[in-house]
Amino acid sequence: MFMNLLYAQSGGVTAVINASAAGVIDAARAHPDRIGKVLAARHGILGLLAEDLYDTADIDTAALSRTPGGAFGSCRFDLPSEETQPALYERIFSVLEAHRIGALLYNGGNGSMDLIGRLSAAARRRGYPLVCVGVPKTVDNDIEGADCCPGFGSAAKYLATAMREAGRDVAAMTGRKGRVFVMEVMGRNVGWLAAATALAARTPDEAPHIVLFPEVVFDEAAFLARVQAVVGRLGYCAVTVAEGLRTADGAPLMKQDRDAKGYVQLGGAGEAIAHLVHDRLGYKQHYALPDYLQRAAGHWVSATDHAQAVAVGHAAVAFALSGQDGVTAAIRRLADAPYAWDVVAVDAASVANLERRLPAEFIAADGMGLTELGRNYLTPFIQGELSTPCVDGLPAHYVINQPLLEKRLPPYAA
Amino acid sequence: MFMNLLYAQSGGVTAVINASAAGVIDAARAHPDRIGKVLAARHGILGLLAEDLYDTADIDTAALSRTPGGAFGSCRFDLPSEETQPALYERIFSVLEAHRIGALLYNGGNGSMDLIGRLSAAARRRGYPLVCVGVPKTVDNDIEGADCCPGFGSAAKYLATAMREAGRDVAAMTGRKGRVFVMEVMGRNVGWLAAATALAARTPDEAPHIVLFPEVVFDEAAFLARVQAVVGRLGYCAVTVAEGLRTADGAPLMKQDRDAKGYVQLGGAGEAIAHLVHDRLGYKQHYALPDYLQRAAGHWVSATDHAQAVAVGHAAVAFALSGQDGVTAAIRRLADAPYAWDVVAVDAASVANLERRLPAEFIAADGMGLTELGRNYLTPFIQGELSTPCVDGLPAHYVINQPLLEKRLPPYAA
Repeated sequence: MFMNLLYAQSGGVTAVINASAAGVIDAARAHPDRIGKVLAARHGILGLLAEDLYDTADIDTAALSRTPGGAFGSCRFDLPSEETQPALYERIFSVLEAHRIGALLYNGGNGSMDLIGRLSAAARRRGYPLVCVGVPKTVDNDIEGADCCPGFGSAAKYLATAMREAGRDVAAMTGRKGRVFVMEVMGRNVGWLAAATALAARTPDEAPHIVLFPEVVFDEAAFLARVQAVVGRLGYCAVTVAEGLRTADGAPLMKQDRDAKGYVQLGGAGEAIAHLVHDRLGYKQHYALPDYLQRAAGHWVSATDHAQAVAVGHAAVAFALSGQDGVTAAIRRLADAPYAWDVVAVDAASVANLERRLPAEFIAADGMGLTELGRNYLTPFIQGELSTPCVDGLPAHYVINQPLLEKRLPPYAA
Repeated sequence: MFMNLLYAQSGGVTAVINASAAGVIDAARAHPDRIGKVLAARHGILGLLAEDLYDTADIDTAALSRTPGGAFGSCRFDLPSEETQPALYERIFSVLEAHRIGALLYNGGNGSMDLIGRLSAAARRRGYPLVCVGVPKTVDNDIEGADCCPGFGSAAKYLATAMREAGRDVAAMTGRKGRVFVMEVMGRNVGWLAAATALAARTPDEAPHIVLFPEVVFDEAAFLARVQAVVGRLGYCAVTVAEGLRTADGAPLMKQDRDAKGYVQLGGAGEAIAHLVHDRLGYKQHYALPDYLQRAAGHWVSATDHAQAVAVGHAAVAFALSGQDGVTAAIRRLADAPYAWDVVAVDAASVANLERRLPAEFIAADGMGLTELGRNYLTPFIQGELSTPCVDGLPAHYVINQPLLEKRLPPYAA
């Protein structure tokens, strides 16, 4: 059995996806008897198709492990079925064979779990000796079948910290006129990240005072009444808004404006909420949109999340070595307090393309806060700080600047 | 001579304004022979007028020093002249006298330097024994007469880190379609914070690739050509946009939209630039608006900035004790590399209401980058990291929850 191993990154990147990469590379290096080269594709499956491959032999995995973003490049690409695109599958297996790749470790979200299942089945059909294993990542925490997903804990810690700090700021700036601060957070259709910001409030007076989840239909009247009550009590109000917030008709809550030139522009849910409060209640408003900052904050990762990201990388290699084809590494909770967890193999196809939403019992009765149950579930993920290696006052990052492997096949014409 | 000391916070708060508060309190405590009580006003001069005062005797200054935001509350209030508002000045001196306050240390920006001058002159006119001293703060770095201003270095470090980290993210997400990432930063009319983000790029290929300063009139054609060139080379482009960016007619660059209900809404410069690139060049766009996060990031302060914030607090007390009325503490650069500095007294009135803009020699010839001279000037301010005390995964903050001092005067009717 030939056994070069290929690792690749897919989907939105995180502050710790490279920690998983480092985990994969380190674990593979520990088995020189069974694993030959550890290769990495540039820009995920697209790099596999293009035969854009790196040899990771010289990579400093300790430095890589603390670098945010996807060091090898990521992609957004849904693998079609083999029936519809047979040539694409032919190409994939040509490249795998040309580089004697016997294990593919794919680091991604829900869509990547689907790819694992498809490639695994395609390999079996053609008798190609391939073990496909998923390495989970997503800041959204929307993958089914696991306690949490690497990337989420660090984004959660970043956002809860941001809300806690901005809450101090807005409290200090409060004057006779009411003031509202809004922060829009990622999460697509699920409210895990929005919920995590509620960890910043240890008392009812601390920010955030209101959390708007995509799982709860936006109720404008109830929301404005609540803002008014908080401002009446404290002089200000801090609100977390999930980017996927929707109104009763299912439409995303966003401004739809025409600029001076007539272009339709979509503003985000946070901006829309901030303007709504200002327009209806007359309060001063500020809003923050951390955008990529929330998923790239390598300087403030959760030590727990980082450890889990490394661990799923290690586990994926172990699963590949034991021939567990078509599985993904999943974090399993063993105990709440103190938090204990391990990594188990879960059938990738069984969790592919699902979407794990915030359960109803984590959402307060009024739809605008987190329950104690939710708080207890989320608290472990943001625990622990790592010191950040810096050069000249800024985080030190590991950047891949080595050449790609020499190509063995003609170029691929998609 | 009676000598209770009053400290107050004014203007936009910062990640280290409480470090200055701690510096003031610690330095004053070290002189029990000369300074009686160390009081603090709630919400700046407004608290002085309302007689909303705290006794700081029991405050944990070490914890206060690492808490962002203004722990005592800030205010936005321009002190009018005594001729126009004599009753207001009467009230101020009544409160000062009732609490036997002989020194007022006011922690603020350009407007606060003006207040120092006015109150100092008013005290002299009435023979009230008051020493007024300024303690500078602003993330904008726009105070004249100093090498830098406490608050700036931490916001600069936060934003340069954010751009460096987000740059890794957007680089990983780059596909066939070009991609642009825009981050809007504070600074009002001055480009110091925008310039600081350029420290994130150690090579021409690193983010940010373009910095748009308020000191440079926005040239749409030149900007778009530059974005296109960068995307052509790298596949993506990261842009810093100062909130105060203006077009040739002097108007702020912002979207002016009507929402569904006909309200005119003002979008920020960053959003406007991101949409401009998308509309004109067709690239995918993401933009971030850190807002309060950039000035409240106590978890990632510059150790240099924090030390300077403490030092101006110490110096202000020393100036008060030596009777240097009407001055402000100013940081003076003694050497570039290694950076050396001390704190000197500068006449507050002489720097009041000025605005220190980015000098032309710090701006690249094309108006879209930082020169080496600018880089050398800015680099020292972001140096050094402090470990952040945390509780349950989030920064520990010191919150004032003690009662106000008992009032000695009737309420003030403004």
